[in-house]
Amino acid sequence: MLSKFRDHLNNNLSFLKEKKLLLAVSGGLDSMVLTDLLQQLNYDVSIAHCNFNLRGKESDGDEDFIINYAKENSFHYFVTHFNTELFASDNKLSIQVAARKLRYLWFDELLQENNLDYLLTAHHLDDSLETFLINLTRGTGLEGLTGIPQQNGKIIRPLLPFTRDEILVYAKENNIRWREDSSNASDKYLRNKLRHDVVPVLKQLNPAFADSFRQTLENLQQAQSLVEDASVLIYKQVVSEKENQKHFNIEQLKRLPNYKAYLYQWLSPFGFTAWEDIYALVDSQSGKYILSGNFRLLKDRETLILEPSSNGNNLSFEITEGQQYPEAPIKLSLAIAQTINKNATKKTIFVDNELIKYPLILRKWQEGDYFCPVGMNGQKKKVSKFFKDEKFSLSEKESALLLCSGENIIWVVGHRADERFKATKTTNTILKIEVL
Amino acid sequence: MLSKFRDHLNNNLSFLKEKKLLLAVSGGLDSMVLTDLLQQLNYDVSIAHCNFNLRGKESDGDEDFIINYAKENSFHYFVTHFNTELFASDNKLSIQVAARKLRYLWFDELLQENNLDYLLTAHHLDDSLETFLINLTRGTGLEGLTGIPQQNGKIIRPLLPFTRDEILVYAKENNIRWREDSSNASDKYLRNKLRHDVVPVLKQLNPAFADSFRQTLENLQQAQSLVEDASVLIYKQVVSEKENQKHFNIEQLKRLPNYKAYLYQWLSPFGFTAWEDIYALVDSQSGKYILSGNFRLLKDRETLILEPSSNGNNLSFEITEGQQYPEAPIKLSLAIAQTINKNATKKTIFVDNELIKYPLILRKWQEGDYFCPVGMNGQKKKVSKFFKDEKFSLSEKESALLLCSGENIIWVVGHRADERFKATKTTNTILKIEVL
Repeated sequence: MLSKFRDHLNNNLSFLKEKKLLLAVSGGLDSMVLTDLLQQLNYDVSIAHCNFNLRGKESDGDEDFIINYAKENSFHYFVTHFNTELFASDNKLSIQVAARKLRYLWFDELLQENNLDYLLTAHHLDDSLETFLINLTRGTGLEGLTGIPQQNGKIIRPLLPFTRDEILVYAKENNIRWREDSSNASDKYLRNKLRHDVVPVLKQLNPAFADSFRQTLENLQQAQSLVEDASVLIYKQVVSEKENQKHFNIEQLKRLPNYKAYLYQWLSPFGFTAWEDIYALVDSQSGKYILSGNFRLLKDRETLILEPSSNGNNLSFEITEGQQYPEAPIKLSLAIAQTINKNATKKTIFVDNELIKYPLILRKWQEGDYFCPVGMNGQKKKVSKFFKDEKFSLSEKESALLLCSGENIIWVVGHRADERFKATKTTNTILKIEVL
Repeated sequence: MLSKFRDHLNNNLSFLKEKKLLLAVSGGLDSMVLTDLLQQLNYDVSIAHCNFNLRGKESDGDEDFIINYAKENSFHYFVTHFNTELFASDNKLSIQVAARKLRYLWFDELLQENNLDYLLTAHHLDDSLETFLINLTRGTGLEGLTGIPQQNGKIIRPLLPFTRDEILVYAKENNIRWREDSSNASDKYLRNKLRHDVVPVLKQLNPAFADSFRQTLENLQQAQSLVEDASVLIYKQVVSEKENQKHFNIEQLKRLPNYKAYLYQWLSPFGFTAWEDIYALVDSQSGKYILSGNFRLLKDRETLILEPSSNGNNLSFEITEGQQYPEAPIKLSLAIAQTINKNATKKTIFVDNELIKYPLILRKWQEGDYFCPVGMNGQKKKVSKFFKDEKFSLSEKESALLLCSGENIIWVVGHRADERFKATKTTNTILKIEVL
């Protein structure tokens, strides 16, 4: 099995050879096999293990197991502890979502702080199959049936084409030790039910089911890429963009026998969900409109006009002290940090917590807004001038958000921080604010 | 439940009200409910029942049940008997495929001979779900996950949005009598295993599974329509048609990140299946080619050329006497008939079996071929002239087939019969030949 796994890595993921890799290891079968595989093939790997404290001594046993394994095999390793239940109840999340959020935030931090290139996880074909079946059970579209992607930004899944059985064969051939995988706790009931009651029937009915399913996923991914092509090509025929509006030509739209499918493709990214109402809007009288969170779809004679809703422009959202994941119009995380990461991207700022005034305000920009962009020695700049210099499109201006302490701008969110609130070497309490 | 079913018919299938309908009735729950529903709503319905003679007395019991039911309820009815096992072994078909073939051939005949407009079958949502799961088990693409279509030419399925449970509720509310549905014998093992072991788990995990699945199917059908749009739009950009060739511009093709998905869409209708070879052909040297049954894909410098293969042009296929479904390059049925149907389409001819010489020959046309088209008082006409007058495209000429008795042409298949072999009132043995 080693040679089969190696061939896959060499043929499809050869760029990983030169990279610094972080490996998410629970201690379960899948991640221990991936760890062993990458070590045998001499990849540059560090190990990261989360103790979610969800199963008492068992969780601690997993942690000890990983630490011993890492020491014995000379791996560089990172271990952290989470109070998952508290975090979940504080943020009104399910245990499963909370654990995922904690895990990926920490992995992200490790990648940034240690200059690592990719996070590797040990997902495999049976995970894709279970995801397929979970989505089918709940109701889904094509995108929900295309399985787990092999790569997703910095996350790579080298075992994705292989079945759990193949991974088990590798484990036996290579004398791998492992513990029950705690990540199985997520989606526990649903996933286990499908794994134990449905998947075996499918495998029994077709002994080559794994191969068939791999091909099915590839076919569906190809179909999905064609769906996206059609969406873009037809958009160009039907829609014209004017300032911050998009104009859908109804006559051209209705020439498409499947125009509802296109409206779905185009409008769902703007948060619309009331499809029957939207389809009815096409034939309704001028002046009627439908709102989603921040957008409005207006029937205006022969056109549907999509534009930011005025509600969106009047938006003003408050963030109180200690709220780590506010339910804001944009997903933010706020947390006290020990150090300032100078390599952080534009999505992250480090501010002096003692200089800011709670509640923080998240709002749209207005004429007359100004701030002191970092790197300009405290010089003032109009926000409108900043947009112009940075060549913002009208729709980028429309959607831009300002994070403010009272009247003062802390951050043109995701673009430029303000000099006045910046954390420095002498800062006592550093607040890390991040767009997720 | 009656009002729910009625509303669906009125909202989505209102055109059936004015039509003459033929209802395929096995005697099982689904078809008996559909029969009762259409009678209560005063549709113009005749009943058709096939006795496949596959379950001895049980099959005869079904037949008696239907005949009695039809008489009691004043339905016009048709009943026929098939020796399904003999037909299956004669034609090397599975029992299931043989039964389907026999059934639909007969339904087609009934529609034609009795001037009926549509065939109605009682397929429902659980049938779509089982088809989805069967295809998933075997390996499939998007098209295999879009369920059973509500309409397919002259076949319409009025109960398609409803579950078996809803149909059962109707049956109880309306005191419907039924017998075990013999059509369940098809795909028996696979379908029953999925029905009894997989579907209940999905329904248990999501009590609203039927609604979710209905929405999933609609989403997938919409995605499929976008796939077809993309296929057509990109084809126009990449392919130019020259005489009987299609030229695929490799440079333009390779600009598409997902060009393999397009090649798959475009080439599978021509019988190609060796996808890895085809993808390799794009980068191979000039002169290499890949064959499918009747087509060749040739690499020629910056182009892939698709054209009829010369094998196809030299084709000459023999049909011996008594072969009902020869394995010819085109699907034909040959059967002795009692009467000549004057309303038959161009896909069917009736010839005098005593005037023709076996084996019949099926071949491509050649320069110099002539025949005596029906309706021209026995006058000769060159086949090439016939093609010209009928405005055949080059590719239509290339693919046209002639059915011959020795040197003489009986039929330009699917287009025009020859006067000399036509069955008349005085014909003793009428042979019906049909393109399937």
